[in-house]
Amino acid sequence: MFADPSPKAADLLQRLKAFFDQHIYPNEERYHGEMDAFRRAGDPWQTVPLIEELKPKAREAGLWNMFLPHPYEGNGGVSNLDYAPLCEVMGRVHWSSEVFNCSAPDTGNMETIERYGTPEQKKQWLVPLLAGEIRSAFLMTEPAVASSDATNIQCSIRRDGDHYVINGRKWFSSGAGSPRCRIFIVMGKTDPDAPRHAQQSMVLVPRDTPGVTVLRHLSVFGYDDAPHGHMEVLLENVRVPVDNILLGEGRGFEIAQGRLGPGRIHHCMRSIGAAERALELMCDRLRKRIAFGKPLAEQSVWHERIAESRCLIDQARLLTLNAAWKMDTVGNKVARADIAMIKVVAPNMSCKVVDWAIQAHGGGGVSQDFWLAEAYAHQRTVRLVDGPDEVHRNAIAKLELAKGL
Amino acid sequence: MFADPSPKAADLLQRLKAFFDQHIYPNEERYHGEMDAFRRAGDPWQTVPLIEELKPKAREAGLWNMFLPHPYEGNGGVSNLDYAPLCEVMGRVHWSSEVFNCSAPDTGNMETIERYGTPEQKKQWLVPLLAGEIRSAFLMTEPAVASSDATNIQCSIRRDGDHYVINGRKWFSSGAGSPRCRIFIVMGKTDPDAPRHAQQSMVLVPRDTPGVTVLRHLSVFGYDDAPHGHMEVLLENVRVPVDNILLGEGRGFEIAQGRLGPGRIHHCMRSIGAAERALELMCDRLRKRIAFGKPLAEQSVWHERIAESRCLIDQARLLTLNAAWKMDTVGNKVARADIAMIKVVAPNMSCKVVDWAIQAHGGGGVSQDFWLAEAYAHQRTVRLVDGPDEVHRNAIAKLELAKGL
Amino acid sequence: MFADPSPKAADLLQRLKAFFDQHIYPNEERYHGEMDAFRRAGDPWQTVPLIEELKPKAREAGLWNMFLPHPYEGNGGVSNLDYAPLCEVMGRVHWSSEVFNCSAPDTGNMETIERYGTPEQKKQWLVPLLAGEIRSAFLMTEPAVASSDATNIQCSIRRDGDHYVINGRKWFSSGAGSPRCRIFIVMGKTDPDAPRHAQQSMVLVPRDTPGVTVLRHLSVFGYDDAPHGHMEVLLENVRVPVDNILLGEGRGFEIAQGRLGPGRIHHCMRSIGAAERALELMCDRLRKRIAFGKPLAEQSVWHERIAESRCLIDQARLLTLNAAWKMDTVGNKVARADIAMIKVVAPNMSCKVVDWAIQAHGGGGVSQDFWLAEAYAHQRTVRLVDGPDEVHRNAIAKLELAKGL
Amino acid sequence: MFADPSPKAADLLQRLKAFFDQHIYPNEERYHGEMDAFRRAGDPWQTVPLIEELKPKAREAGLWNMFLPHPYEGNGGVSNLDYAPLCEVMGRVHWSSEVFNCSAPDTGNMETIERYGTPEQKKQWLVPLLAGEIRSAFLMTEPAVASSDATNIQCSIRRDGDHYVINGRKWFSSGAGSPRCRIFIVMGKTDPDAPRHAQQSMVLVPRDTPGVTVLRHLSVFGYDDAPHGHMEVLLENVRVPVDNILLGEGRGFEIAQGRLGPGRIHHCMRSIGAAERALELMCDRLRKRIAFGKPLAEQSVWHERIAESRCLIDQARLLTLNAAWKMDTVGNKVARADIAMIKVVAPNMSCKVVDWAIQAHGGGGVSQDFWLAEAYAHQRTVRLVDGPDEVHRNAIAKLELAKGL
Repeated sequence: MFADPSPKAADLLQRLKAFFDQHIYPNEERYHGEMDAFRRAGDPWQTVPLIEELKPKAREAGLWNMFLPHPYEGNGGVSNLDYAPLCEVMGRVHWSSEVFNCSAPDTGNMETIERYGTPEQKKQWLVPLLAGEIRSAFLMTEPAVASSDATNIQCSIRRDGDHYVINGRKWFSSGAGSPRCRIFIVMGKTDPDAPRHAQQSMVLVPRDTPGVTVLRHLSVFGYDDAPHGHMEVLLENVRVPVDNILLGEGRGFEIAQGRLGPGRIHHCMRSIGAAERALELMCDRLRKRIAFGKPLAEQSVWHERIAESRCLIDQARLLTLNAAWKMDTVGNKVARADIAMIKVVAPNMSCKVVDWAIQAHGGGGVSQDFWLAEAYAHQRTVRLVDGPDEVHRNAIAKLELAKGL
Repeated sequence: MFADPSPKAADLLQRLKAFFDQHIYPNEERYHGEMDAFRRAGDPWQTVPLIEELKPKAREAGLWNMFLPHPYEGNGGVSNLDYAPLCEVMGRVHWSSEVFNCSAPDTGNMETIERYGTPEQKKQWLVPLLAGEIRSAFLMTEPAVASSDATNIQCSIRRDGDHYVINGRKWFSSGAGSPRCRIFIVMGKTDPDAPRHAQQSMVLVPRDTPGVTVLRHLSVFGYDDAPHGHMEVLLENVRVPVDNILLGEGRGFEIAQGRLGPGRIHHCMRSIGAAERALELMCDRLRKRIAFGKPLAEQSVWHERIAESRCLIDQARLLTLNAAWKMDTVGNKVARADIAMIKVVAPNMSCKVVDWAIQAHGGGGVSQDFWLAEAYAHQRTVRLVDGPDEVHRNAIAKLELAKGL
Repeated sequence: MFADPSPKAADLLQRLKAFFDQHIYPNEERYHGEMDAFRRAGDPWQTVPLIEELKPKAREAGLWNMFLPHPYEGNGGVSNLDYAPLCEVMGRVHWSSEVFNCSAPDTGNMETIERYGTPEQKKQWLVPLLAGEIRSAFLMTEPAVASSDATNIQCSIRRDGDHYVINGRKWFSSGAGSPRCRIFIVMGKTDPDAPRHAQQSMVLVPRDTPGVTVLRHLSVFGYDDAPHGHMEVLLENVRVPVDNILLGEGRGFEIAQGRLGPGRIHHCMRSIGAAERALELMCDRLRKRIAFGKPLAEQSVWHERIAESRCLIDQARLLTLNAAWKMDTVGNKVARADIAMIKVVAPNMSCKVVDWAIQAHGGGGVSQDFWLAEAYAHQRTVRLVDGPDEVHRNAIAKLELAKGL
Repeated sequence: MFADPSPKAADLLQRLKAFFDQHIYPNEERYHGEMDAFRRAGDPWQTVPLIEELKPKAREAGLWNMFLPHPYEGNGGVSNLDYAPLCEVMGRVHWSSEVFNCSAPDTGNMETIERYGTPEQKKQWLVPLLAGEIRSAFLMTEPAVASSDATNIQCSIRRDGDHYVINGRKWFSSGAGSPRCRIFIVMGKTDPDAPRHAQQSMVLVPRDTPGVTVLRHLSVFGYDDAPHGHMEVLLENVRVPVDNILLGEGRGFEIAQGRLGPGRIHHCMRSIGAAERALELMCDRLRKRIAFGKPLAEQSVWHERIAESRCLIDQARLLTLNAAWKMDTVGNKVARADIAMIKVVAPNMSCKVVDWAIQAHGGGGVSQDFWLAEAYAHQRTVRLVDGPDEVHRNAIAKLELAKGL
């Protein structure tokens, strides 16, 4: 049931870690400096020079589009199980994924176009996305309805001759704040009278289509997550050619299901990377701070939290790797309980570990001087995106209850 | 052991609630509008017009300086037990306390000067503070040491003839960001060679004294908490007359102990008010949102969280009122375990309730569209200010362990 | 909202504590000795000599039937608020309540007959119960259905001329194991076709009526809770005169509601007494045991648990006293959320505290050498009797959700 | 990192499950019947006929002594990773391990004698133990000291010519209640003046040696765990030949360390098996019970607990299998954090899952009618045996804190 990592996975991981040591960790301060300068100048929605500078280096190092399960640029295709540990490393520095063209939601969008797009759609959108030249957003969640039940989605995609006319309001459209974001995948109803799971479709909507307005960003515990952001987007009589549909009318659910599995592995492994780093910071702080005559690291109340953190992290990692392995070997459908489980386990775990790390840092822990408060805000949000915990727990429970019958 | 509230307390509470209905709740949007305008203009560290407009109304309504335990402006003095429910109401809107001149750290600073100040100090600083004309800050915590152990405080207050020369670096100096903040109470060491609890003193330092630099604000998660803020302040060869000392050299600890009790009641009751409001928002949201065919309010998993919230809130309130009552009847010293207990219980409780409310709101819960994420950030911080949970739990445990002997 | 206890309550409490010091604590070992001897002899379902010896002393000390809200034997009637602290003391030694004729389910049964019984029923059953000469049981829960939903109760009470004929199987009939248990109150359906809340009735069934068989005891973890026990009782064509009905046909629900409130205060205060004692034992053990060079009492991980225990106990006590006060002042109906809340809070709290105490005792904690494992088993069971947590949480949540409308 | 189980492991598992279906599950009632008959007759400390009847069948089925890592009876030796899933199955029925001669503490004792015993010791004790003819106990924990710190052990093993003279009092000596238990491994101090970790030794003490008295059993939440029991044993001037020492004087710690690893894998996998079975029972009960108009299985509060149970169980299993794999590949020493982690994780997890299952069963859940209360008592005890959680968490934390240096 257990075995050493494949030579390929070990090699990729070793090279990625080396890249982090050389190019990512030493540039964390510079990244914040560039963003702070944008903010002081009144517009954080800009392309970050550091990222653009590092992308060619990553590509050169053979660390580009690793998320792709099929061969790319001489890279033989990376399985979910082999890719997962790379996500863990990228989870340690939230802006790093983009350097390797491995950031959400572009990864999911690229996979979607790759699997379901026409040759023309691929040529127009997939090629520049794979090259890291443009970015994309996925417009699904709506402010007016409980979007965790996807059948609630109200956005209208009405056929009018050779076009679809789209009307709706979307929010938490992550990535839509970037000036490089050029293409949206929009989910909405083509046929409100069809059976519940055949009403929804997905269409490609270029961002500069008339009628598209990116209204504002939604903050996450006070953070704007610029330059990508989580945006509210208004779609008013947006017209796109019928060729822009993905896979066909009424097949939106099918696509949504297909794209979720790998994305959850990525999210969860990044959560695990964040928790690992928080635990390192926690231990580091506890060793250094003296109170009441001895380092905090000698207080058994902190031993309890360190030990619990280690136990929780290692368990979440094994569960996620196991889910990845199942996806690779028996497929997303058989692995669906496993995928739901990691979606609950990993961000809850990382929230807990990061919160303990904040506590170990005292007041500083909630401030900008440490990466922890921002990490907490992000991890807490992961418990809501792609469906809140409750939806996944219900799915797990129903599969479990069905077992005995 | 239980009795109805005093007529005075009931009257004050009724009048405060009426003021909220008339002047506070209807102005919540305006407050955010004014602050947003400041932010867009690049400087949020400004006096908010709304607050200044409401202050005279509050004073006129006899809702001014209610925190004072002694008579003020014909008001006969309000006990901790009678004042506590007013704090709960004020905790529902974080900016409201200032309208009634009841906001931290000014309340604690006014009490400190009232109890320990000379007539001259009172004339110069207490009078304008009571009038709400200026504001103040309390400079204690330092970035370089674990300040939860107050003997760690390093700031130097060296006597030089008729002056003290102060050198140190303080942070989380709440309120120091406001342009109206004119006076600091600074804690530091006058005699590093004295016994551990006689090394520290407190001095009054006017903000415009040469050598004082307010360096920057510390964010709380991603919030700046402007216009008051939590500031980092550098003190370089700051000279103040020896008359600026409070109570006398080496008596800083004594003052620190004396000021803590009432402040904790205030903090905790505000936390309870925040939790109450979060529970209302949670119930409201759950009633309105439909998923999988029925309102979320019919899901028993939410019944569990609503019920737990109600149980936790009511218990925390009773514990806090009981501590207030003990402070009023047997004094802070006898009530010290009770005061430590509420400091642990109330913010942990409110973090939990607010977090559940966020979960009930889905993605919106972490955004600026609801008050919840900001409330969470604030409540999480209360678990760290005035000593982290761990310090208070140790104090409670030591008192408990001493009982059996 | 807070006040000192009434002189009467203070006096009763002081006298009860004195009685414990003189007669209860010094006899704990003797109690176990007498029960062990019964067990070794093969029959633990016997009257315990110690209890019988102490009853007259308690009566003489004016500590008899204190649970009664109305005057009794020159005792002027004790309110719920005044009686509650007495229950806390009795909760420290599980067998002590009977000494004062204050043990469940007799207290609830006596109140039921007092409130709803005919003069003849009172003469026959209430008088000897109040005198402590006989004991009683309450037969409600059934093994075949989820009895937490009382409408599920299936026991048939069919009228046949001047008699009722009763058929059913009951379990967890506490107290029915004692040879002194002479009377059962049985709940069952007199009219299965009536509206849901008018189907059930309660009748008095003398234990020696033909057709009554006490089949066996149900253990609680591995304890038999002899000599009273939790019994399974078979009722086969049991005939009782129609005069044995309480209040009237179809009024079983009404009686069930009426009897629950005070009983819950008693249960919960006993849970609090158990938790208090567990905390004392925990502190005591931690002070005495040395590991890795210092007493366990110096480990901060134990400080956390001691402090949490103290916070939880004090909160649960205040919540329960507040519920008692509300019952006394505004009545059971207005206080119904409060009563539901304590039913969830108190036993969950005591389970947690007792469990920590077990952990502090190492292996000994689960054994017969300490009172802890037995206390845990009992407290865990309180979370199920009179409705599981889930039922009470649902009730609390529904009241809360109704508030906003 | 993940792979399918080895063909050998898969085959063993399949055969063991078949044996359970044929011989274990169908005999659960008979086992309880035989034990109940012993209890009614006044002596439960007897050999159970069912077990003796099944042993030859297990041996015949090639399911005998599978715990041995080296070849035995044509069986090629089973690795920790291959053996672990077998323990999970055996954990479902607590008495089943003995049928396969795989029950604690015999497994650990056999391994100890195998690794450290002389040929003579092996001949005398290992041979009949491997044949399942006798049983053994391990006498380490003492009632007078915190035995979690093994340096506290006080039992004296004093050399006197060709003999050791042993004096001490041990408790929780599991298995010593059985009439077949013939040999004790006793830990005690041969040299109280040696360095801390060289004071202790282990000697073989035949149970019938003069001076050995098995005083009584320690109960576990009211259960006697007969016929093996957890016994208190008095050793008064017990004389054994010096040849009875294991490995040599002062090497007790070394042996203790060596024997712990595999035993923990066994304990933890059995805990996981118990949790799995509890989850099955919980789902089964929830499907069957109707309250308030629908099956409990449709309540989302139970979905939450089912989902959490599944997540916790699967994570604990992966963590334990990973620890087993590390023990097999890099050895106990490198795997020591992993072994400590599972010792904390697995029983805490199973306590939680079993407790939820009890709650789902209502009052019946704490009674003898379901296996749950007894399972809870046992799992709760696992958190204390072989060191309480706190000791293991400290060990994990110290390894973690050392990483950063």
